[in-house]
Amino acid sequence: MASATGEKVWIIPDGYIPEVSSGALTSHESICVLNTASEDAHLSISIFFEDRDPLEDIQEVVQARRTKHIRTSSLAKDGAPIPIGVPYAIEVKSNIPIIVQYSRLDATQAENALMSVIAYPIK
Amino acid sequence: MASATGEKVWIIPDGYIPEVSSGALTSHESICVLNTASEDAHLSISIFFEDRDPLEDIQEVVQARRTKHIRTSSLAKDGAPIPIGVPYAIEVKSNIPIIVQYSRLDATQAENALMSVIAYPIK
Amino acid sequence: MASATGEKVWIIPDGYIPEVSSGALTSHESICVLNTASEDAHLSISIFFEDRDPLEDIQEVVQARRTKHIRTSSLAKDGAPIPIGVPYAIEVKSNIPIIVQYSRLDATQAENALMSVIAYPIK
Amino acid sequence: MASATGEKVWIIPDGYIPEVSSGALTSHESICVLNTASEDAHLSISIFFEDRDPLEDIQEVVQARRTKHIRTSSLAKDGAPIPIGVPYAIEVKSNIPIIVQYSRLDATQAENALMSVIAYPIK
Repeated sequence: MASATGEKVWIIPDGYIPEVSSGALTSHESICVLNTASEDAHLSISIFFEDRDPLEDIQEVVQARRTKHIRTSSLAKDGAPIPIGVPYAIEVKSNIPIIVQYSRLDATQAENALMSVIAYPIK
Repeated sequence: MASATGEKVWIIPDGYIPEVSSGALTSHESICVLNTASEDAHLSISIFFEDRDPLEDIQEVVQARRTKHIRTSSLAKDGAPIPIGVPYAIEVKSNIPIIVQYSRLDATQAENALMSVIAYPIK
Repeated sequence: MASATGEKVWIIPDGYIPEVSSGALTSHESICVLNTASEDAHLSISIFFEDRDPLEDIQEVVQARRTKHIRTSSLAKDGAPIPIGVPYAIEVKSNIPIIVQYSRLDATQAENALMSVIAYPIK
Repeated sequence: MASATGEKVWIIPDGYIPEVSSGALTSHESICVLNTASEDAHLSISIFFEDRDPLEDIQEVVQARRTKHIRTSSLAKDGAPIPIGVPYAIEVKSNIPIIVQYSRLDATQAENALMSVIAYPIK
């Protein structure tokens, strides 16, 4: 049995889905999760905004001994996706310890720009 | 009641507002804050320089259960903004725990460049 | 005798080798390791995927008082390299404490993009 | 009296001074330090390589209540600077706690690329 590693709650304050893509690649963000355990990780993702109540408890599963790179544009709560061009923040909760990294590819202009952070773990 | 998470003091040593923008986007930096608590967070931001005394106690509020992405060009102390094209550092203090990320978009040239870090928490 | 510093297990959830290079530079990722100790560090690197079992125990050595910037494209297990254009995650284990940073240069388009994170230490 | 915050030892595994600049900006790296204390911080910086002994004890001072963004190209030991186009790693030691961030601007191609990390603190 492989054990779970990491933490159960992770925060990403700077979420943003760019409105425009003009190069060969499409602008996108990914929440990249690693589950080192021999059991599946059940995630509950919440999205916080500047001017409205949070979207809470969007569910995802990361299988045992697998990584999952989740496009934020694929996340939806009751059919409502995260709006584009709006600042937001992300909280990722899991029933077992995981590790979370956030990366953004901005292809607003012809050439792309990249940024990445390890999310902040709440211990 | 949702609880506060994170830390009360965060440091960003590499602050810099680019002097020029030449693409479709404007160069800017953002201090991105998440307040997960059911009460407002009251922030006191200080700016440190290489060759002069710090600008201290610039005040901001991040509402309960909200994120706020603060443009550093909007920060001012007694009407004095942060000078552009000058290296500086940022300290963010809050009366309750928060989480802070810093991101910079540099549009000095036609194509943009991005960088981002989770600020360093003082525990 | 110089002592070892850092941790023995490090995680990078967002691994990805870009498929295309079109500028003067070649797209690549590097796992950058520092060994501050007076003895060699013996690494065991595992690669996790979204849809298949991990590649485990790829071995590397970082000499005493040296850094090593390991190109992920050079990593192979029984002759099988990491596939390009596929999301994956990286676990770096060492017999002595080390410090690990991960950087990616994406030259998919004519102009390059950079991202970098300090890997997440498991304590 | 303002107190010192942070840690006394910081590590940056991925150092690299790009060989070429072709845009309006010059490729460079910065070691960005914040000293929140009312006394000066005395730094001792060591540079580790892949294939030779480290350059040890390059000295710098960060004044009380000041930040300093140190260009790595300005660092030298007995007149010998850090070679360009060579992978290296950085250790920053200080006599009092400080906070350290590392940023790189790569202007190898016409458009610039940025990366930044908070250095890894040794506690």
